[in-house]
Amino acid sequence: KEGAVEFFIPELPDLISKDMEVFYNPFMAINRDFTVLILKAYSKLKAKKLFVADPMSASGVRVLRLLKETNAVEKAFLNDIKKEAIELAQKNLEGHQNVEYFNKDANVFLLENKGFDYIDIDPYGSPVPFLESAIKSLKTGGLIGITATDTASLSGSYPFKAFRRYGSKPLDSEFYHESALRILIKSVIEASFRLDSVLKPVFGFSYRHFLRAFFVKLKGVSKAVDISTKIGYIGYCHSCKFRESYTCILDLPKFCPLCGDFFDYGGPLYIGSIYDNELLNIMKDEDFAHFHKDTVKVFTNILKESSIKSPWFYKANIFGKGIMPKLKQILKDLNAKPTHFSPEGFKTDLDFKYVKEYFEKWA
Amino acid sequence: KEGAVEFFIPELPDLISKDMEVFYNPFMAINRDFTVLILKAYSKLKAKKLFVADPMSASGVRVLRLLKETNAVEKAFLNDIKKEAIELAQKNLEGHQNVEYFNKDANVFLLENKGFDYIDIDPYGSPVPFLESAIKSLKTGGLIGITATDTASLSGSYPFKAFRRYGSKPLDSEFYHESALRILIKSVIEASFRLDSVLKPVFGFSYRHFLRAFFVKLKGVSKAVDISTKIGYIGYCHSCKFRESYTCILDLPKFCPLCGDFFDYGGPLYIGSIYDNELLNIMKDEDFAHFHKDTVKVFTNILKESSIKSPWFYKANIFGKGIMPKLKQILKDLNAKPTHFSPEGFKTDLDFKYVKEYFEKWA
Repeated sequence: KEGAVEFFIPELPDLISKDMEVFYNPFMAINRDFTVLILKAYSKLKAKKLFVADPMSASGVRVLRLLKETNAVEKAFLNDIKKEAIELAQKNLEGHQNVEYFNKDANVFLLENKGFDYIDIDPYGSPVPFLESAIKSLKTGGLIGITATDTASLSGSYPFKAFRRYGSKPLDSEFYHESALRILIKSVIEASFRLDSVLKPVFGFSYRHFLRAFFVKLKGVSKAVDISTKIGYIGYCHSCKFRESYTCILDLPKFCPLCGDFFDYGGPLYIGSIYDNELLNIMKDEDFAHFHKDTVKVFTNILKESSIKSPWFYKANIFGKGIMPKLKQILKDLNAKPTHFSPEGFKTDLDFKYVKEYFEKWA
Repeated sequence: KEGAVEFFIPELPDLISKDMEVFYNPFMAINRDFTVLILKAYSKLKAKKLFVADPMSASGVRVLRLLKETNAVEKAFLNDIKKEAIELAQKNLEGHQNVEYFNKDANVFLLENKGFDYIDIDPYGSPVPFLESAIKSLKTGGLIGITATDTASLSGSYPFKAFRRYGSKPLDSEFYHESALRILIKSVIEASFRLDSVLKPVFGFSYRHFLRAFFVKLKGVSKAVDISTKIGYIGYCHSCKFRESYTCILDLPKFCPLCGDFFDYGGPLYIGSIYDNELLNIMKDEDFAHFHKDTVKVFTNILKESSIKSPWFYKANIFGKGIMPKLKQILKDLNAKPTHFSPEGFKTDLDFKYVKEYFEKWA
């Protein structure tokens, strides 16, 4: 059982791994909650029902939930490279007429069936091998949701792997969840640029071991200039925690402008806004009753933090080991908002120096 | 007629364009000469016959030449998205048994038929939309040849287009052919990195309106570190013509280290050696009788310039408008070699300052 649906899944082993005959990860219920939520909103925004593709559909639970919990689907296209998975999906989706099944390589499926309004890329590991086919397959104006579970490399544990797969230097800092998500977003935008398309981020989050970002495919390439100015670098001082975004790497100081220590950096990564306000406004009015409690928590925090323009959230404990004020107090004192990235985290548009001085009174 | 073969082609229009029913460009004979030459050598190097894929085969002339002019082909796989093209190819290749025909999207063909020893990517325009499928489709140890005809953007005429498609800033200089080729090579290497593979360049050239580079797919990803150190930047002074390669963009000076003027740059791009000596040595002993005279000329110059380690060739006229010494004299005086990139160009491992002073006597 998940969301508002009941369905067959293979018996869960002790260890969730890609060697499962048909893959199912119960922690991913939150991932699918957000697909349901955003598709409901997106369908309303576009005032139409959608052609939806799930190229790695496994048990079919995602499409089943979209069909049962939303009115957003005109027709769903399920694909899985495993025959057993597609058979299970057919069983789970029995009785639904507006569904087509494919048993192909995910990229081949996407390239042979173009023009989707929504594509969900949710592979085991990195989404990189599927990005280009998905972008080619997505309709102009269409929405795409991309999951990455190779969070360790994106967060800085395997920097060279991140460099290879995502073309960026990750940064190990207290806000590594955010820099990881912003590297993922950058690499999706870059993939669209390569193919003479432009994807614009409209929603995204980090939850446990995975990252998720949604994009809309814009018309033409004229918006590429604008979006490329939102690809930059985060400069970071491991000593005094000063952080600043830079559009051009050549403007990155070698030493911390504040304390003069070595100045580290991460990037290239996306430094613009991750959220589309129009979409957020429709999403917030949807019915959250069937969703996991963490889905509600994540979304509530996203609503709050989306009003802050500056990326790179803070945690009080980076400024010292003293007894720091409670988060509630911090939010008030620093015009700050909580962030879904971390329970102790907060975001503010105030100057770094001001934030630092505030905490130095306590540290 | 081309190379050692005769074949049917559609009537040539006044303007060669992708709107031709079946595409054929007579200037590309040189491109195909090099496919013949390198496949002969590569087959000898590997001591085996090859499974060869031509995903955009058009009239089939490339495979026809490989079958008639080499003993390198075990089996050839032709694909074209146009039915008329495949029909023409079948006519041209009549009587050859070891050939299979496909009529699919090039990427789908590559993804559905994996394990080739050689893949030829020769699209109209940019090869970028085909790179990932080709890399996935190529056998470990296999060879891939990639043509780009969107030379204008790679050379600096459309810098933002180059940035979008190839992720690099092009540089407008006297050696723009070389920086364009090195941006193309970088973007192919990056595509392989994204897919947990490693492609290593083994041959490449620029001729008229197109660029061509060949790569071997290495085993595993361990060589990625080594090759990533060969991806860097070219710093360039438009005033005094000083040029230097940098591995890290953060080492790039803002002002010319020599004359203090504004220091421009291009990249990221490949700054390592483009040529594999073992392969060159086999290639040079092949029979050149059927090749176009320009093929011989290009290859002869490549043989010479491959002994010079430093990238970025020179032209005498960049140092002044005086009567400069003849190329023959320059080659002698500067331990230089001619380059296929330009008839007046030369390459040397000597220090830039020495080269500049040499010409200042004449300017």
